[in-house]
Amino acid sequence: MSSIESGCLEKIRPGDEERRLIWDMASALVREIDDSGFAKGMVVGSVARDTWISGDRDLDVFMLFDPSVAREDLEQMGMALGRDIATRFGGDIIEKYAEHPYVNTHINGFDVDLVPCYDVESASKIQSAVDRTPFHTRYIRERVDNLTGDILLLKQFAKSCGVYGSDHMTEGFAGYLCELLVLNYGSFEGVLQNAAVWTPGTIIDIEDHRTKDFDEPLVVIDPVDPGRNVASSLSSTKMFEFSVFCRDYLTSPSGDYFIIHKQPGLSREEFNDEIRKRGTSLYTIVFENPYSIPDILVPQLRRSLRSLENLLEKNDFRVMRSDCYMGSGRSVLLFELLDESLPPVVRRAGPPVWNRSNAEKFLKKHLGLTYSGPYIEGERYIVEIERKYLNAMTLLKSPEIFLSGLGKNVKISMEDHYSVHRNEEIWDENFSVFFYNYIRKESPNVRILQKSSGK
Amino acid sequence: MSSIESGCLEKIRPGDEERRLIWDMASALVREIDDSGFAKGMVVGSVARDTWISGDRDLDVFMLFDPSVAREDLEQMGMALGRDIATRFGGDIIEKYAEHPYVNTHINGFDVDLVPCYDVESASKIQSAVDRTPFHTRYIRERVDNLTGDILLLKQFAKSCGVYGSDHMTEGFAGYLCELLVLNYGSFEGVLQNAAVWTPGTIIDIEDHRTKDFDEPLVVIDPVDPGRNVASSLSSTKMFEFSVFCRDYLTSPSGDYFIIHKQPGLSREEFNDEIRKRGTSLYTIVFENPYSIPDILVPQLRRSLRSLENLLEKNDFRVMRSDCYMGSGRSVLLFELLDESLPPVVRRAGPPVWNRSNAEKFLKKHLGLTYSGPYIEGERYIVEIERKYLNAMTLLKSPEIFLSGLGKNVKISMEDHYSVHRNEEIWDENFSVFFYNYIRKESPNVRILQKSSGK
Repeated sequence: MSSIESGCLEKIRPGDEERRLIWDMASALVREIDDSGFAKGMVVGSVARDTWISGDRDLDVFMLFDPSVAREDLEQMGMALGRDIATRFGGDIIEKYAEHPYVNTHINGFDVDLVPCYDVESASKIQSAVDRTPFHTRYIRERVDNLTGDILLLKQFAKSCGVYGSDHMTEGFAGYLCELLVLNYGSFEGVLQNAAVWTPGTIIDIEDHRTKDFDEPLVVIDPVDPGRNVASSLSSTKMFEFSVFCRDYLTSPSGDYFIIHKQPGLSREEFNDEIRKRGTSLYTIVFENPYSIPDILVPQLRRSLRSLENLLEKNDFRVMRSDCYMGSGRSVLLFELLDESLPPVVRRAGPPVWNRSNAEKFLKKHLGLTYSGPYIEGERYIVEIERKYLNAMTLLKSPEIFLSGLGKNVKISMEDHYSVHRNEEIWDENFSVFFYNYIRKESPNVRILQKSSGK
Repeated sequence: MSSIESGCLEKIRPGDEERRLIWDMASALVREIDDSGFAKGMVVGSVARDTWISGDRDLDVFMLFDPSVAREDLEQMGMALGRDIATRFGGDIIEKYAEHPYVNTHINGFDVDLVPCYDVESASKIQSAVDRTPFHTRYIRERVDNLTGDILLLKQFAKSCGVYGSDHMTEGFAGYLCELLVLNYGSFEGVLQNAAVWTPGTIIDIEDHRTKDFDEPLVVIDPVDPGRNVASSLSSTKMFEFSVFCRDYLTSPSGDYFIIHKQPGLSREEFNDEIRKRGTSLYTIVFENPYSIPDILVPQLRRSLRSLENLLEKNDFRVMRSDCYMGSGRSVLLFELLDESLPPVVRRAGPPVWNRSNAEKFLKKHLGLTYSGPYIEGERYIVEIERKYLNAMTLLKSPEIFLSGLGKNVKISMEDHYSVHRNEEIWDENFSVFFYNYIRKESPNVRILQKSSGK
C-alpha cells in the first residue's frame, strides 16, 4: 500500500470511539428486536461488514421473520415492530418502500433503516430481494478479515470517481459489488490493475457456479445466487469511467483520486455565455416532480427523454445531446438541438408503386397539394409537402408530446402542467449544478487531469 | 386495338413513300459496301425491323468484316470504307466512338451511322458489343411480321412517358427491349397489362436459356445471349414510371398517352417564387462541360452528385434532394438543403476507451480544447468541439470537394474553374427546362392526371 493510500485510509477508517458508538447503538436495536419475540435482529450493510467509511451514519438493521409468516402479516408486524422500536429510541418514523415497506428513523444522529425480511434457510429460497441481504452480509463477513482496508479505499475511490451507488440515478457500483471485486482480485491494487483493462463482457464468477448468460457489460455472479448479476444496474458509461479512472491513477497516483468532488454550480452569466458560444438551441421542459420514489421516477424521466428525443428527430429537429434531472421540487428535461426552425417543405416517401391500392390511395391524397410530386424514386412515390412543425417550440407545446411514450407518472404530472423554455430563458437557480454538469461535462479522470495540468 | 390506338398508329406508321425512300437509300449503301469487296453491308436497327416511327431519319448500316481481320485493321478499314462511302454519297464525315470508332454522316436528310463489326458465326463468338446487333436484327426480323403495329405503339407510348432510350441520361427502354416485350407478351395490350403489375425482380426469358442471376429490377434475357440482361440499363424509377403509366392508361385510355410532351421552361420570376415558398436553401455548382461523350459524362455527373451529397451530409448539411444536368456548354449540380448554417459546436465520437492507445491519443488531442468533454458515453469517449464548416457555401468552395470522389473528367473541369451559386442567384436561362423539371417534378402519369382533372 502506497503512502497516498495509507494516508487516505487513516482518514476514512472509523476510529475505535466511532466504532464503539455505532455498535452500541446497533446492538441495542438488535437486542430490542430479539426481545420482542416476533423476529430476530441482524445488523447488515457496511457496518456489519466493518467496511463503512468514517463519518457515515447509515445503519441497516434487519428484522428476520419466520418464513411461515404470511406476507401481509410480515408487512404489518414488521412495520408495527419498526415503529415501536423507533419510538422507544426516541426516533421519528418515516415509512419507506422498496419491495415492501420498512421504517426509516433518526436516532442519536444515525440514519437507521428497520427492514423486515424472511429468515430463509438458503439464498435459493428467498421470497423477495431483501431476504438476500443477510446472506450477502454473512458471505462477506466470513471472508473479509484482512481486506477491510482495501474495501474502504475502493469505496472512497469509487465515490471520488462519482460511480459509487447502484441507484438508478447513479447506475454505478453498489457497496456489495466493491466488496466482491476486492475479494476476487485480492486487493485494492488488484482491482485497479484489472479494471484498467476491462472490456465489455467481462465476467467474474467467484464461486464458479453461473447458471445463465447475461448481456450486461460487466457480469459479477452473486456468490449466494448463481442466477444473479450483482453488476446488473451498472451502466456501460460508469463501468468505463471507473476503468479509465483506475488507469490514470495507476499511471500517476495522487491524493486527488480519493477526494470527493464537490459539484459547483454555474452562474447565470456563465451559463448564458456558454449557450451563446455553442450556438445550438437549448430547450427545457419543466414540471412538478411526479408523486413517486426516485428509483421509479428516474427511469421514467430517462424514458421520457428518449421518447421526446425521438419525436424531435422524427420531425427533423436534430438532438445533439439531452439530459434530465430530478430537482428538489421540479424535474427538468433538457434538449440541445442543432436546428430549431425548418423550411416549410418536407419530403415524404410513399408506398412502393407496385402495391397498387396503397400507392393509389397515396397518389389521390396528395394530387394537386404538393410543392413537388408525386414523383417516383426507385420503386416508391415521393411527395414534397407542407411541413407540420416549423419550429421546435411549437412541437414541444403541442399535444403530440403526450402520444410520444412518456413515463406514466411523468405524463400525469405534465398533463397537469408543464412549461417549455428556450436558450437564455431556461436559466433556473435550482438547476445550476445540473447545468454546470451538462455544460462542463467531462469524465472524472479528465477532471483530475485538467486540475493537475492547471487548465 | 382501340380506336385511340389505331388512330395513333395511323399517324406514326411510315407510309409507302417514306418506306420506299429510306429503303432505296439503305439498299444503295449496302450495295456500295458489298461492292467494295472488304465487307458485307447490312441494314440493322428499327428500319431493318420495320419498326421505325414515321419521321425518324436514323439509318444504321453495318459493315460486316471477316473475323480473321485483326482488330486494328478492322478499325482502320472500317473507317476508311465509311469515309469513302459517305463522301461518294455527298455526305459529311463525323467520327464517333462507341466500343470502337464509326462514321456518322448526313445524306439526303438521313442521319446515317456506318459501323464496322465482325461477321461472326454465332452470338456466342462476338468480339465486341456491336457484333451482337446483326443477331438482334435477324432474331426480331424473323418473328415480327404481325407485330410491327404493336411495337410502334409501344415505342410511341414509352416516348410519351419519357422512358424511351437506354442511354445513361434516360436509363429507360431500348428499342430492342420494346420489341422483345411485345414478342413476349404477344401484343401492345399484353405488354401494358403485364407491366401494370410488375414488381422488382420480374424476369422474362423468351428462349428459356438463362445461365446466371441478375439483381436488376427487370431482367429480360437476351434471346441471342443467355448471359445478358437486355434491361440492365433500365433504372427502377423508369421501370415503375412506365408501370403506372400503363396502369393509368388501362384505367382511362386517352390519346394524351401517345403525345410527346414538350418540356416547358420556368421563368426567373416563377423560379424565385418557388424558392421562397419552399424555404429550403438551393445551391448549384456550375462548370464547363468536361471533354468527353455524354454516355461517359452523365454517369460521372451522377457520381459527383452523390459524392458531394455525402460530403454535405457528413458535415451535417442535410440534402433534401439533388439533381444534375448537362447543358449545351455547361453542366450543373444542384443541391437542395434543409440547413445552410450550423452552430459552431459539433459532437464527435472517439474510440472505445478500452482500446487504450487510441483512447489516450484521442484524449490527449482534445484535452482543454473542447466545448464539453472528453466525456464517456457507453464505452466511448465523446467530445464537443469546434465545427469545421459553419455554412454550406464555405464547404462547397473549399478544396475538400476535390477529395470527395468526383468523376474523373468532372474533376478536371472543376479544377480548371467552377462557381457556386445560392438561391435566387442560381438562376440561369440556359437551365430553365432543368429547373422546371426539378421544381415541378412529377411522374408522367401524374402529368396526365393533372391535365385531365384540369389542375
